[in-house]
Amino acid sequence: MSAPLRVAVAGLGTVGAGTVRLLQAEAALLARRCGRPIALAAVAARDRTRDRGVALAGVPWFDDAVAMATEADAEVIVELIGGAEGVARRVCESALAAGRHVVTANKALIAHHGTALAESAETRGVTLGFEAAVTGGIPVIKGLREGLAANRVSEVHGILNGTCNYILTKMRLTGRDFDEVLSEAQALGYAEADPSFDVDGIDAAHKLAILAAVAFGCPVRFAPANVEGIRHITADDIAFAEDLGYRVKLLGIARLGDQLIEQRVHPCLVPIDSPVAAVEDVFNAVIAEGDFVDRVTLVGRGAGAGPTASAVVADIVDIAVGRRTPTFGVPADALDSRALAPLSARVGCYYLRLMVRDEVGVLAQIARALAAESVSIEQFIQRRRDPGGLVPVVLTTHATGEEQMMRGLATLRTLDCVNDHCLIRIESF
Amino acid sequence: MSAPLRVAVAGLGTVGAGTVRLLQAEAALLARRCGRPIALAAVAARDRTRDRGVALAGVPWFDDAVAMATEADAEVIVELIGGAEGVARRVCESALAAGRHVVTANKALIAHHGTALAESAETRGVTLGFEAAVTGGIPVIKGLREGLAANRVSEVHGILNGTCNYILTKMRLTGRDFDEVLSEAQALGYAEADPSFDVDGIDAAHKLAILAAVAFGCPVRFAPANVEGIRHITADDIAFAEDLGYRVKLLGIARLGDQLIEQRVHPCLVPIDSPVAAVEDVFNAVIAEGDFVDRVTLVGRGAGAGPTASAVVADIVDIAVGRRTPTFGVPADALDSRALAPLSARVGCYYLRLMVRDEVGVLAQIARALAAESVSIEQFIQRRRDPGGLVPVVLTTHATGEEQMMRGLATLRTLDCVNDHCLIRIESF
Repeated sequence: MSAPLRVAVAGLGTVGAGTVRLLQAEAALLARRCGRPIALAAVAARDRTRDRGVALAGVPWFDDAVAMATEADAEVIVELIGGAEGVARRVCESALAAGRHVVTANKALIAHHGTALAESAETRGVTLGFEAAVTGGIPVIKGLREGLAANRVSEVHGILNGTCNYILTKMRLTGRDFDEVLSEAQALGYAEADPSFDVDGIDAAHKLAILAAVAFGCPVRFAPANVEGIRHITADDIAFAEDLGYRVKLLGIARLGDQLIEQRVHPCLVPIDSPVAAVEDVFNAVIAEGDFVDRVTLVGRGAGAGPTASAVVADIVDIAVGRRTPTFGVPADALDSRALAPLSARVGCYYLRLMVRDEVGVLAQIARALAAESVSIEQFIQRRRDPGGLVPVVLTTHATGEEQMMRGLATLRTLDCVNDHCLIRIESF
Repeated sequence: MSAPLRVAVAGLGTVGAGTVRLLQAEAALLARRCGRPIALAAVAARDRTRDRGVALAGVPWFDDAVAMATEADAEVIVELIGGAEGVARRVCESALAAGRHVVTANKALIAHHGTALAESAETRGVTLGFEAAVTGGIPVIKGLREGLAANRVSEVHGILNGTCNYILTKMRLTGRDFDEVLSEAQALGYAEADPSFDVDGIDAAHKLAILAAVAFGCPVRFAPANVEGIRHITADDIAFAEDLGYRVKLLGIARLGDQLIEQRVHPCLVPIDSPVAAVEDVFNAVIAEGDFVDRVTLVGRGAGAGPTASAVVADIVDIAVGRRTPTFGVPADALDSRALAPLSARVGCYYLRLMVRDEVGVLAQIARALAAESVSIEQFIQRRRDPGGLVPVVLTTHATGEEQMMRGLATLRTLDCVNDHCLIRIESF
């Protein structure tokens, strides 16, 4: 058996401790699969006293993760600190600069600095592994980059944030509204104390940027302008969607166009029989369309110590065995240079709920405002009656340009009879 | 850019022609992804005159595929002839013996001779690639062997035969019986003129044997004694199952037990909200359970020229890049030696439909016969009435040993009032 692969782990939070636990629990199996042992060469974390449930006696300890990145006696630096800047970034940059392989679960870092990090890794002939950064244990990076290597991938979309999917699922099943379900998710540990990264779509957008890079061989580009979260979705919207044959999901969608690349994250109405509609609770899913393979769907747990550690160690195994792949499928100097399309370029159908005063002539005013922008209405539903009060009016449109729709909506919001609204894009996969 | 990887293709049927088409259509993309071109070095097929829609001018042609396997100026031999014996086997054996990489879509060959072929490949330090042998374009072999490399996989199950899944789906949607839907499937090209390989479960069992080997690191063992097809399923059974909250699917199931490995193919009642229940028509699915990753589901097209070529060329790309993995995840001399469990060792719930004479005392006789074998009934349904005629009685059991159930069934079949029956195992994933 060959010499061990020496691995140093920076960050001993949930995922870091889970990774150490996996490396220790499955040491014999991993050695058999790799043809060599994987040795824990060092760890870095701030608090030496905390009990993390893993045996660290005799493992060299660094208080300074950045120092460990270059000084530890290790070929692989595993960065599990998190965050797009600061220590995490310096750990990865200095490890690569020192010619060490880097494995990370850090989606923010890769979304913001992935292209530069990939170039650095390529220059030194080392690996930048980030399977764990996207949808936890589901092997989507390997699946796209190697499994579908024979395909021109034209589209990838998916449920990339388990917190949002949990919240939307619970809202649908219980009929409760966003705030209430969010509090419950926080109590269960499915949502952070500050939930904005998740519920505002940022986390999903980080992952989508990485997926797009891998699927299309383009630079990683985090595009916050094309991101919308789920705070404005109400239990009513979910129920109306269900009546119309749709389910509400926060999706990341990336499409390779002739001139531009679409890359956007927002809530969607998806047909109830589409593959993503069936993916509920904290589960994640990625669906890719290739020209030869057609549609491939991958589903699993997108977070948690076990699934994330599984992906981190899968990357380590690739390094141990010597399996190499260009970071985004093609060499960094051959990345596709197509620009990102703005969200305003979208063409598609829309769901619109308006809270309107229940009085004569309201529907006519709404229809007129939309007709003026050539927005063609497909369905119009008014269920409740409350003369003089506010009632929801729901409509869906035929395919419409986003800009037309937004102009129509702007007009609607100037009407006295319209009080509030919720616009959701319809995607038919 | 490095020297081309030279590839020779044996067999120019649907998949062979599709593979050549892919290699030609995506030549530039593949060269970028591999860092070297993939060159079509030779082809072998019997009929030189047939138009296969691909340009073969200038490509060396062999009438004898076995000769090509050793004589072509190629590092990779792609075997797309099919069949567990004969030419296909000789092509693979002689190519490996000559130190050439082999890529094949041949599930029968790998199911019957995979272990020996893997040993031969390992001895010569070459690759035996067979991603295309299991579930077409879905990257399950790579997903299991590399993507879940950090896990002890305890179970893998799935819909491994698109023909059966198409037939069962259509039977459910139309209420028509097996023979009628089979004819339609044959007319559409979804079933062969001789459908027995598919509908009797053999094809699924070939794939399951390969999946089990890859998931558990055990030898490939085709186990025909543990295989049951779908010919005996009626539209009535599918409708009864639906009423009970189940869908009928032909599944391959492999489980790693403490002493034995379960490996069986048979129709199953699966809960309507299980991941496999939603996989319909010709789609295939594989669900793996790993100790760290939990459950991962992969879904896609399990057959057809495009998806299968996608998998064949993914294997070729791995070879071109130099990515290597032991054939069944661990070296051939480290394979798990646990024996296969017989189907009779199963413990689980059962669905049983009996056609009985509609007369007083029948239910009591049935209940007595099962009670004598300690088979505990969970539900008992008799819907139709036809005094003196035959009516279906449907029951489900609590968890029961297969042998008990079979003894109970044997007793039932001796009863005058029982005319016909259909037994389906219930699996709750």
